[in-house]
This record gives sequence, C-alpha cells and structure tokens, in this order.
Amino acid sequence: MMVRPVRIAVDLLGGDRAPDAVVDGALAALAADPDLHLALAGPSRLRPRWDAVADRVTLLPTDEGVGMSDSPVRAVRTRRTSVRLAVEAVRSGAADAVVSVGPTGAAVAAAVTELGKLPGYRRPALAAVLPAVAHPVVLVDVGAHAGASDSDLVRHGRLGSAFARVTLGLGAPRVGLLSVGTEPGKGDPLRKKADRALSGTDLHYIGLVEGYDVPLGGRADVVVTDGFTGNVVLKTLEGSLVLAGTSVARSRYPRAATLLGVAGTVVLGHGAAGPTDVADCVALAATAVRAHDHAHLRAALEKPAPRDDSSENAPMAAALAAPGEKARQ
Amino acid sequence: MMVRPVRIAVDLLGGDRAPDAVVDGALAALAADPDLHLALAGPSRLRPRWDAVADRVTLLPTDEGVGMSDSPVRAVRTRRTSVRLAVEAVRSGAADAVVSVGPTGAAVAAAVTELGKLPGYRRPALAAVLPAVAHPVVLVDVGAHAGASDSDLVRHGRLGSAFARVTLGLGAPRVGLLSVGTEPGKGDPLRKKADRALSGTDLHYIGLVEGYDVPLGGRADVVVTDGFTGNVVLKTLEGSLVLAGTSVARSRYPRAATLLGVAGTVVLGHGAAGPTDVADCVALAATAVRAHDHAHLRAALEKPAPRDDSSENAPMAAALAAPGEKARQ
Repeated sequence: MMVRPVRIAVDLLGGDRAPDAVVDGALAALAADPDLHLALAGPSRLRPRWDAVADRVTLLPTDEGVGMSDSPVRAVRTRRTSVRLAVEAVRSGAADAVVSVGPTGAAVAAAVTELGKLPGYRRPALAAVLPAVAHPVVLVDVGAHAGASDSDLVRHGRLGSAFARVTLGLGAPRVGLLSVGTEPGKGDPLRKKADRALSGTDLHYIGLVEGYDVPLGGRADVVVTDGFTGNVVLKTLEGSLVLAGTSVARSRYPRAATLLGVAGTVVLGHGAAGPTDVADCVALAATAVRAHDHAHLRAALEKPAPRDDSSENAPMAAALAAPGEKARQ
Repeated sequence: MMVRPVRIAVDLLGGDRAPDAVVDGALAALAADPDLHLALAGPSRLRPRWDAVADRVTLLPTDEGVGMSDSPVRAVRTRRTSVRLAVEAVRSGAADAVVSVGPTGAAVAAAVTELGKLPGYRRPALAAVLPAVAHPVVLVDVGAHAGASDSDLVRHGRLGSAFARVTLGLGAPRVGLLSVGTEPGKGDPLRKKADRALSGTDLHYIGLVEGYDVPLGGRADVVVTDGFTGNVVLKTLEGSLVLAGTSVARSRYPRAATLLGVAGTVVLGHGAAGPTDVADCVALAATAVRAHDHAHLRAALEKPAPRDDSSENAPMAAALAAPGEKARQ
C-alpha cells in the first residue's frame, strides 16, 4: 500500500524574516522528509522558489499578511490573510496540520475561527516541550493569551497533562502550578485560587513549583502558568542558554509550540524564526500527524489519567489509541 | 585615622539551612573582610561557633525564627523574631545594614515596620543585578510582593533607575518594561497601562522588552516587572544556567538582592542559600555601606537622570554625592 504523504499547510507571510526564511525552511523540510507535501499560503510571485519540487507543493495564493501593528483578530476575521488560508486548508481537509511563525494572536484567532475550540475549552493554550536537567518539561501556556483565570489554569493543566501523556508517553504526568515558592499559599491571589482548584481535580497535581523547576525538571512533567508568565519564562530560558554559551535547546528541541484546545493540529514558531526553526516546526507537525496525536489528545481529555505516585509512568498511548489507529510508541 | 568597621546585622534563623549555613557564611565573610563587624541575631547557644572571633561579633539573642507556615507579617509584628531584631539593629544605629536569607515576606515586613518606607514609595521592591551577555541588568521586582499595579511598576522603574545610577555608575539607565513582545500594546492590561504611564515619566524609558532581554542585555539596563514575574524569571535564569552546565552567574554575581524603597540598606538572599551565598550577601551589604549607596540612592531619587540617548552613560555618582560623602567610582 502506498503511504499517503503528510500534508502540512505553511503560512509564508508570518514572522520577522518572512517570506524568505519561511520558504527556505519549508524547502528544507521537504528535502528532509520524502513523504511530505506542503500547502504554502502566500504570494504567487514566490512560485519559482519551489520549481524543482513543484509536484510536492500546492500554492494557496494570497498577498495579505498580518502586520505587527494590525489587530490580529480583526486582520484574520476581515481579510484573506495567509495564516487564515493555511488554517482553512486544515478545516477543509486539504491539509493535515498547519504551521505559522507569525504573530501568535493572529494564528490563535485563525485557529479558533476556522477550526473551533474543543468542547469545554474556552481558551486555547500553547504548549512547549522544553529541555530540562531531569527530563523534558511541558510548559503551558507559553503565550496563546496574555493572562488567565483560575479555571483557565485548570484547563491548561488538563490540556498539558493530556499532551504529555500523548507526546511524552507518560501514564500520569505530574502537574505543577508555577509560583514564587512551593509552600501552599505562596503566590498572588490567582495562584492561590488555582492551587485550590487544581487540588480538586483528578489530575496528578503535585502543587506549586518555582522558576527553577522548568529548566531543572524532576518535580513536575507539566508546568502550568498564564500565557504572560509562560512567554516570559520561555524567552528567559532561551536567552539564558545563549548567555551560557550553549545550544542545548536548539540541538535537541525544536523552537516550536503546539496549540492545544482547538480542533486540529496547529504548530506555532517564533517571530524571529530562521529556516531551521521553520523546518523544525514542519517536522514537529508531520510527526504529530503521523502519530495521530490530535485524536489521542482528544481521547486522553475524555479519559482521566489514573493518579499514580510511583515513579514508573508506563506509556499509556496504546490504551488511548482510537479504534483503527496505530498506537504510538 | 582609624577606619570604623562596617557593621552588618545578620538574621541567623532565616533560610532552609539555618542556622548552620548562615553562621558558616557569616564567619567566612568575617575572615574575608578584616574591617567587618557582625551583629548576629539568633540563639545564644550558637555563641561557641564564633569563639575565635568573639571580639568582632555582637549577639542579638533570640530563639524565634519565622517558619515557612507562619504568616510572615504576623510573625514579625507579634514576635521578637531574628529578622526583626536584625533590622532593628539598623534602625537603632547599632548596625549599618542587614542581611537575611529567610522568607522574603518576613524580611520585607520587618524592614517596613522597623525602617519605614521612603516617602512616595508605597511598596518596597527587590532589585537583583543579573549577569547578561551585553552588560549587567537590574531586574526589579524579584519578589518583594507577588503582584503590582501600574503605578507600582512606575515606582519600580524609578527605584531601579536610581539603583542602576548608583551601583552601576550609569548616567541615564535605559528602563524597559517586561512583556511578551516589544511592539506597543503587547501584553496584559497591566503592562498596557504601565507602558503608557512609564512613557510619561522623566525616566529614560525605552518601552517594552521581552524575556530574552534579561539574560542578553543590550536593550535595557533596568527591566521592570511585578514581583511574581520577576521571581519566576530570576529562578528560571538560575535554573537555566544549571541546565547549561555553567556557573557564570555564581562566579561573577552574588545571589543576593537589594530591597529598595525602605529607609536603610537591606540585602536579601535565597531561601536555599549556602555559606558562600550568605558570605556574598554580607559582602554586598558591606560594599553598599562603604560606598554610601543608600544616601546616593535617596539623592538620585530626588534628582531625575537626564534623558540621554547616547551610548555614553558617564558615571554620575560624583554629581550625586551628598555633601561630606565620598563619591563612589
């Protein structure tokens, strides 16, 4: 049986270095993955750039990007922007997943408008898998929305836990709430309320964690925070690794985040993304599609993880596999 | 003329490793600085620990610490806790500065109660000088209070700018507001309001900065944020340097923060402080006392820095020196 290529839609007009760095990254992803097909949303004048691989590329023609000074929501709702066209391709079934390195607000608005939210999830959240000393850590939200209520933070915990079960193969991911100390009661009023609310869920909630616990790991597999704090933490961590003169993050982890809480696979990168970052985003999206991560995530959200305080977190992806789908290792 | 020793009060009962690590650190600081005298607030049973240097130590006897489960404000107000005794020594003139590595909330409460706030500064803020690629960066607030209003953030900017003028010798420190993007309007409602308010001050305000700009430097000398975010950033940066396997921070910068906005010199360390951290805190406090930093800071707060967009930030400490005081180089 022939393998159907994975089809990823890419927003060519998002990002500080668009469209050139995005086209370069898309072409690098195609070169690295022979079973990949791309739907590129952007100006038709760029077509000569992919002449050599024209049979593996579909153009979604538009000249409209979202400027940094635009209101992202208005831009997405009122214009045929490249990010909207790319997301639309997922909704229509023409693509399996979408990648954008443009303004996060525009990508989130496009995803919500075109794909819709998962039932019960009023705010999408961006999850990044980060390098840490002990094990990878899922940080959620890294900036889908600059703020959160206590019930948003509970939902971020549910989304992050399900995402860690599916993508890291953990049985009962330990969920921690980012605060300024680990003793109950530490933090601002939002954290105090969210700490109580998370304690009452069926998540494997381990309580408050601190800034150290993101790069060190060891205490929590999933660190929950509002999108303002999460975005600042993500960028502080990246800058700190530069300060330390290391590329530990770049060499092992893509600078890409997955939008959770919407009905489809949406991978977002960095505004400053270069070609390698874009190629990493496309590869991450293709991996998620091949592993049926989105179906597994929805199944995991329906079926709470067993509370398990043992350190043995046996992969549960097999148990979560939807009928007819291959379980991910 | 004989040099009068600098007298630092140290809270022996604060910190996860108190009192042993704190006593060890205090003794190390004494050994490193022959013109230092210490007032140690803690149990008299520890006295044999400083037998060999008994002439350079005064005991402020108390057995009362602030437990992690105590309400810091209540503990400080109602009991003769070690942190309160140590701060009291500054108020009474028995000590020139105070060091604590105990719960921040208790130290801030003690400082406010005993020393009082500087006129116009309703909330003290903790300032840390952090290592960065381009130059040291002052981050304020790193956790004196888990939250802030927009006018608190403006005051943090004033305090941080004055602190950078005095301790880093900058003429017109560039002040940035930490957010999730650099374009005006990025961030939550608090940042939007604070951005507008900071733009209307006589500070050399350069606008919004991002998480990168703390460890990288280059854009702002002073990064202003609320104490929740600042504390998380500080700990993320520290943990990231561990992840990267480097001790760049430890080798050049003390893990110590200066409490700004109170009427005296208060240096706070880390709950997990070891002897070296405590010794670093004492040395930082002694340096600040010798350079008359507190008097310079008050003078700097009275006298706005000239707006200066040139990269030449000539040291202005001389211009700020109070009459009869030696200007710091």
